[in-house]
Amino acid sequence: MDNFTFYSPTYFLFGKETEKQTGEYVKKYGGHKVLIHYGGGSVKRSGLLDRVKASLDEAGVEYVELGGVAPNPKSGLIYEGIELARKENVDFLLPIGGGSVIDSAKAIALGVPYDGDFWDFYTGKVVEEALPVGTIVTLAASGSEGSTDSVVTHEDGMHKRCADGDILRPKFSIMNPELTCSLPPYQTASGVTDIIAHCMERYFSHTQGVELTDRLLEAVMLTLIKEGKRAMADPSNYDARANIMWGATVAHNNITGVGRAQDWGTHHMENELSTTYGCSHGEGLAVLFPSWMRYALKEQGPERFVMFATRVWGCEMNFEDPEATALEGIEKYEQFIKSIGMRTSISELGGKEEDIPKLVESMFFEAPNHGSFVQLTKEKAAEIYKMAL
Amino acid sequence: MDNFTFYSPTYFLFGKETEKQTGEYVKKYGGHKVLIHYGGGSVKRSGLLDRVKASLDEAGVEYVELGGVAPNPKSGLIYEGIELARKENVDFLLPIGGGSVIDSAKAIALGVPYDGDFWDFYTGKVVEEALPVGTIVTLAASGSEGSTDSVVTHEDGMHKRCADGDILRPKFSIMNPELTCSLPPYQTASGVTDIIAHCMERYFSHTQGVELTDRLLEAVMLTLIKEGKRAMADPSNYDARANIMWGATVAHNNITGVGRAQDWGTHHMENELSTTYGCSHGEGLAVLFPSWMRYALKEQGPERFVMFATRVWGCEMNFEDPEATALEGIEKYEQFIKSIGMRTSISELGGKEEDIPKLVESMFFEAPNHGSFVQLTKEKAAEIYKMAL
Repeated sequence: MDNFTFYSPTYFLFGKETEKQTGEYVKKYGGHKVLIHYGGGSVKRSGLLDRVKASLDEAGVEYVELGGVAPNPKSGLIYEGIELARKENVDFLLPIGGGSVIDSAKAIALGVPYDGDFWDFYTGKVVEEALPVGTIVTLAASGSEGSTDSVVTHEDGMHKRCADGDILRPKFSIMNPELTCSLPPYQTASGVTDIIAHCMERYFSHTQGVELTDRLLEAVMLTLIKEGKRAMADPSNYDARANIMWGATVAHNNITGVGRAQDWGTHHMENELSTTYGCSHGEGLAVLFPSWMRYALKEQGPERFVMFATRVWGCEMNFEDPEATALEGIEKYEQFIKSIGMRTSISELGGKEEDIPKLVESMFFEAPNHGSFVQLTKEKAAEIYKMAL
Repeated sequence: MDNFTFYSPTYFLFGKETEKQTGEYVKKYGGHKVLIHYGGGSVKRSGLLDRVKASLDEAGVEYVELGGVAPNPKSGLIYEGIELARKENVDFLLPIGGGSVIDSAKAIALGVPYDGDFWDFYTGKVVEEALPVGTIVTLAASGSEGSTDSVVTHEDGMHKRCADGDILRPKFSIMNPELTCSLPPYQTASGVTDIIAHCMERYFSHTQGVELTDRLLEAVMLTLIKEGKRAMADPSNYDARANIMWGATVAHNNITGVGRAQDWGTHHMENELSTTYGCSHGEGLAVLFPSWMRYALKEQGPERFVMFATRVWGCEMNFEDPEATALEGIEKYEQFIKSIGMRTSISELGGKEEDIPKLVESMFFEAPNHGSFVQLTKEKAAEIYKMAL
């Protein structure tokens, strides 16, 4: 096990009707005037925005609002948010939504107190200062409600990049699983796939002696497989939604990932798919992971994949042919994500072989290092994209 | 799943040689003059105390020290610590040790800013204020390095009680698994048993729809069984020690226990054994848990115990006779704790049947409620003690 630090100071308020306490918590964490940030109209239609405003009014917290965050959030709205927040003397960010909205809010939080371009933090500048952020989660997927990172896309070149730092952990996150019961199936399935992928990026590691985090990652994956199926079949099942929602947080606040090398190559490859083809981040991962695993199995041997197959997918160990067991696990994973409605090939997304050089170039643009379990070169990335066609 | 809040702001610094950063972290968390608190002479003999002092000196942090904490820490030394800390204007507590030392320090931290008797917080007074605490862990067991609680014994009546509150989470915890490699086997085994027990107190619950925390608890238990055996056979195995150490924290910082009713009846019964017979807390739990489980199985049915048997202990499900599977799991648990050297009966601790009324009276003294999965009455507690004779 490697040395590590772990610091996760977010206050989580989890369960039914917790959004009614928003005002109280903004106040507790020092907010006087918040920027409410959200996506499309669903927070209005559902009445959630009104409930949150009522709670802020009751607590005497002022607010301005900025909607319109799209999936794979873009720099344009972030610049607009930074300007608005400065003009209105906003001192607290309140995103209501999933990972896209939260990550857009984190980017605004970084930009407001910074003299330069917020994008600097997404291209290597160390994250040290940001406005405080408190979240209200409406989609279980990214884990951004408890994580140190923010992933956004710059419209100049359409590069999707990540900023990372302890200060980006939200001060509080309000998580009511009921808010996710009305999600369209595609979003639920994309979330489940993303959460499992956050575990897989940590699971495939060369670090030895990490039994506890191996087991914790398996625990989250086993839960997501079971509860993911249940939520797809019965969208209003509260317990299924609750297990998925807390699973998203546990999968990505890094308590399951400490002390071990993590991969993240597939996430980096995925950034290009969602940016290019407009699929959800989860679906892009569904497209790539089977091919990445088959590639990694060939390059790195079957050990971790046999463990994945037997412990997570319940495959019987084939002692004469461990690779067969490993491949069976990958197939079961692929069947599962197909069964919940994910597409699993680039061609289904509308992509073609001739797109690959552009995907690879964009991925490696000012970003030479990708992956740890498999250290991706341009050639390897191109091969994996080709396998996923 | 029940509504819950989760807040675990402790900064964990985990791995080899991390104790060298003690001074830096005390300073970072606002300490100017610390009370170093410890147990017997092992922190001196091992050179750890000197290394910590050197680190404090380097950071310009002043210190006084108070050793002598015994297992099952007592009120006498706590009163002494409160007086010393006040006299010396201590503003930060630095326990070096296991749960006893950390819990004694937490009690001092509660007592210093409080006008009344610190014991009030152990008999129901709400915990709101305390000096900051940072820990250096030398024994993986209690999880107190990341938990909200402190368990100490008042010498007036020898009652062992618990105080609980978010403010009791340490500001930082320094965890170097190497420091645990020289522990005597009895302490290692007691720690492993305690950690597994912290999972069991959460696992046996009537709350439905908690698949994720079920799986997380199983993950920690499976790890402790494997790594516990490995550490007993090969005490200097770093990875085994590291998995056990982080397992202790994960088992008890409550990320594995949110959203579900927890039992804790066995812990309450155990308090009387360690206080009366001087066994370790872990060994007292080893004595009681098999009997508690057999009692609970009879009263509450086999469902949870079958899950425990098949998922944690690898028992084959007997579909014709689930109770037989449940009992097999309990037996495997008992065999395991015996195999690592724990005694598993009150008589082995030197106790007798005629002691039982006194144990029960002390347990219920000013504390009427014990247990949730099984709601203990005096009669039930007496029966379980008798089964454990």
